[in-house]
Amino acid sequence: MKKLINRPEDAIRETLEGMALAHADLLRVDVEQQLIVRKDAPVAGKVGVVSGGGSGHEPLHGGFVGMGMLDAACPGAVFTSPVPDQMLAAAKAVNGGAGVLYIVKNYTGDVMNFELAAELAEAEGISVRSVIINDDVAVEDSTFTAGRRGVGGTVLAEKITGALAERKASLDEVAAICQKVNENVRSMGMALTPCTVPAAGQPSFELGENEMEIGIGIHGEPGRRRVPLASADEIAEMLVTPIVEDLPFRKDDRVLAFVNGMGGTPLMELYIMFRAVHRLLEERGITVVRSLVGNYITSLEMAGTSVSLLRLDDQMVDLWDAPVHAAGMHWGA
Amino acid sequence: MKKLINRPEDAIRETLEGMALAHADLLRVDVEQQLIVRKDAPVAGKVGVVSGGGSGHEPLHGGFVGMGMLDAACPGAVFTSPVPDQMLAAAKAVNGGAGVLYIVKNYTGDVMNFELAAELAEAEGISVRSVIINDDVAVEDSTFTAGRRGVGGTVLAEKITGALAERKASLDEVAAICQKVNENVRSMGMALTPCTVPAAGQPSFELGENEMEIGIGIHGEPGRRRVPLASADEIAEMLVTPIVEDLPFRKDDRVLAFVNGMGGTPLMELYIMFRAVHRLLEERGITVVRSLVGNYITSLEMAGTSVSLLRLDDQMVDLWDAPVHAAGMHWGA
Repeated sequence: MKKLINRPEDAIRETLEGMALAHADLLRVDVEQQLIVRKDAPVAGKVGVVSGGGSGHEPLHGGFVGMGMLDAACPGAVFTSPVPDQMLAAAKAVNGGAGVLYIVKNYTGDVMNFELAAELAEAEGISVRSVIINDDVAVEDSTFTAGRRGVGGTVLAEKITGALAERKASLDEVAAICQKVNENVRSMGMALTPCTVPAAGQPSFELGENEMEIGIGIHGEPGRRRVPLASADEIAEMLVTPIVEDLPFRKDDRVLAFVNGMGGTPLMELYIMFRAVHRLLEERGITVVRSLVGNYITSLEMAGTSVSLLRLDDQMVDLWDAPVHAAGMHWGA
Repeated sequence: MKKLINRPEDAIRETLEGMALAHADLLRVDVEQQLIVRKDAPVAGKVGVVSGGGSGHEPLHGGFVGMGMLDAACPGAVFTSPVPDQMLAAAKAVNGGAGVLYIVKNYTGDVMNFELAAELAEAEGISVRSVIINDDVAVEDSTFTAGRRGVGGTVLAEKITGALAERKASLDEVAAICQKVNENVRSMGMALTPCTVPAAGQPSFELGENEMEIGIGIHGEPGRRRVPLASADEIAEMLVTPIVEDLPFRKDDRVLAFVNGMGGTPLMELYIMFRAVHRLLEERGITVVRSLVGNYITSLEMAGTSVSLLRLDDQMVDLWDAPVHAAGMHWGA
C-alpha cells in the first residue's frame, strides 16, 4: 500500500490536525470528537447546516465548512458513517437559535445515525430537519444503501443550501431549497481503478487492465456494469444518457454541469470529460449555464469521474453564485 | 493506459476546449494557438504577467490565469515546452502598455524559447522582462535542466507577482518581487508512483511496490535517491531538512508552507503531510504564518507530494492575501 500516512489507525486524527493547522482562519477542529466547525459558529439567528459521512471523500464535507456553505461536518472513519454523538455535538455547536439542517447522503448507516442524532438534539430543544440526498441514477439499492445513493449532488446541495442559510432564511425555507436541489439533480460515476482503504491495506475491488466500472459508487460499490475501456466521449455518453433520461432533463432546461474527479484523475482528463458532456447536452438542447470541474467528492485515490446535472431555476442560480469561503470551495466576497 | 481521453494527439486541444467551456466568464482560449488569456486582457497600464510550460501540471499554469495572478498562459504538449510563437502571442495579447513579465520555470527548452520570444516581442516594441524560477533543492542539473529545476515555488511566485501587477506597479517592480520570491523559496518533491504521458502510453519510469523516489522532478526525472517506503513523518523529514538547510531558513523566520499533491494523492494524505511539515518547522522555531495544501503543480496522475517553503516579509504576506480570481486559485473579493 503506497500512501503518505503514518499508522493507518491515526490517519483521521492526523488529517484533522493538519486541517486545523492549515485552516486556523476558517475552522475550529475538535480532533477527539471528530468535528469540524466554522470558526464563527454559532451565528445568531442563522440555521446551522451540518453534513457528515465517512472520510476518504475530501474535500467533502470538511472542506466545505465555512461562510456560505456548511456550519459543521462530522467525518467518520474512512468509508464509515460517523456516530450520532458527533452529529449531536455538531448541532449544539452550530445552533444559533434558528435550528439545524442535517444534509444526509443516502447510506443506511448515515441515515440511521443522523435520525438518532436528530431525536437527541430535539430532546435538547434544538429544532432539526433532515434532507436525504439520493441523486445516483446508477443503481437502485446497493452495498450499504437502500434506494439510491447520495453522491455528487451533495456538493451542489451543500453550496446552494448554505447560501440560503447565510441569508438567515427560516429552517423550513432552508430545508425546502435543499429538497429542491435533490429533486432536480441526478448523477452517475465510473472508475478506471480501485482505491485502497488505509486500514484494509489492499484494493477494495479489482479491475482488469482493459476494464472499467460504469455506475460505481463512491466507496467502490458495484455499478451497472463492467465494460471494456472506452474513450472519454463514449464514457460521457454512458453517464449523460441515463442521467438525462432519469429526471428527465428536457430541451431548453438550464443546468449546472458538474464533472467531478474521483481523486486520482488529472484535471486535464476532467476538462476533456467536461467538453464531451457539454457537447452531449448541447445536442439535446440543454443549456449549461453554470459549471464545476474538479475533485470535490472523491474516493481516495480512485481514478475515474462522476457527472452531476442540476436543473436550475433563478433562485438556485442566485444561490450558486453567492459568496462562499471554505477550504475546498471559494468565490465571491 | 487507463485515461479519460480520446485520441492522445487530441488531448491538449480537447483540454483547452473544455477549459474554454467551463470558464467562459474568466478566460479567452485560443485553441489553435494554445493560448489561455484573461478575459479582460489587455488591462491598460498594467504589466502583463505570462507563464507557460509543458502541459500535465494542471492547474498550473492555465488555472492561474485571472484577476490577481496571470494574464496569460502558454501550454505546450504534455511535459514539452511551448514554442516562442505562443509566448509572443501571449505578450501581444496582454500588453497594456506597461510591458510584460515572463515567469519561466528553469527547464532548458522553456528558458530558450522564452528568451527568443522576449527578443521577438522587444522587436515589436513590447518591453519584456523574464524571471527564472529555480527552487528545487533536490539536484543540481537534471534531465532537461541546467541548474536547479523550477517547481512548486512557481505557484507562489505567480500569485504574489500577479498581485503586485494588479496594483499597476511598474515592470521593474513586478520583476523585482518575482525575483524576491524566487530568492526566498525552496522546494523538494517525492513520488510513490510514476505517471504515464498519453502519447507514450506507458509509465515514464518504474518504482517497485516498496520503493519511492525522493527529490523527483515534476516530469518524473530522477531525484536524489530511491529508498524503501517510509511513513509520512519520515518523508516530511526527508523533504524539510534539505529545504531548510539550503536557504537556510532560520529560527524566527516567518514562512508560507505549501504542501502540494502530484495529482494522484488524496487530500487526506496531503493534510497528514502538512501536519508533519508544520511540526518539523515548529521544532526549528520557524513560524508558519500562511499555508497552501492541495494539487497546484501536478505530474498527471503521479502519487506523491512536494513541499515548498517561502520566507515571507510583510510585502509578500500582503500580496499573498490580495484577492485572486482564477479557475485554480480563488479568494478575497
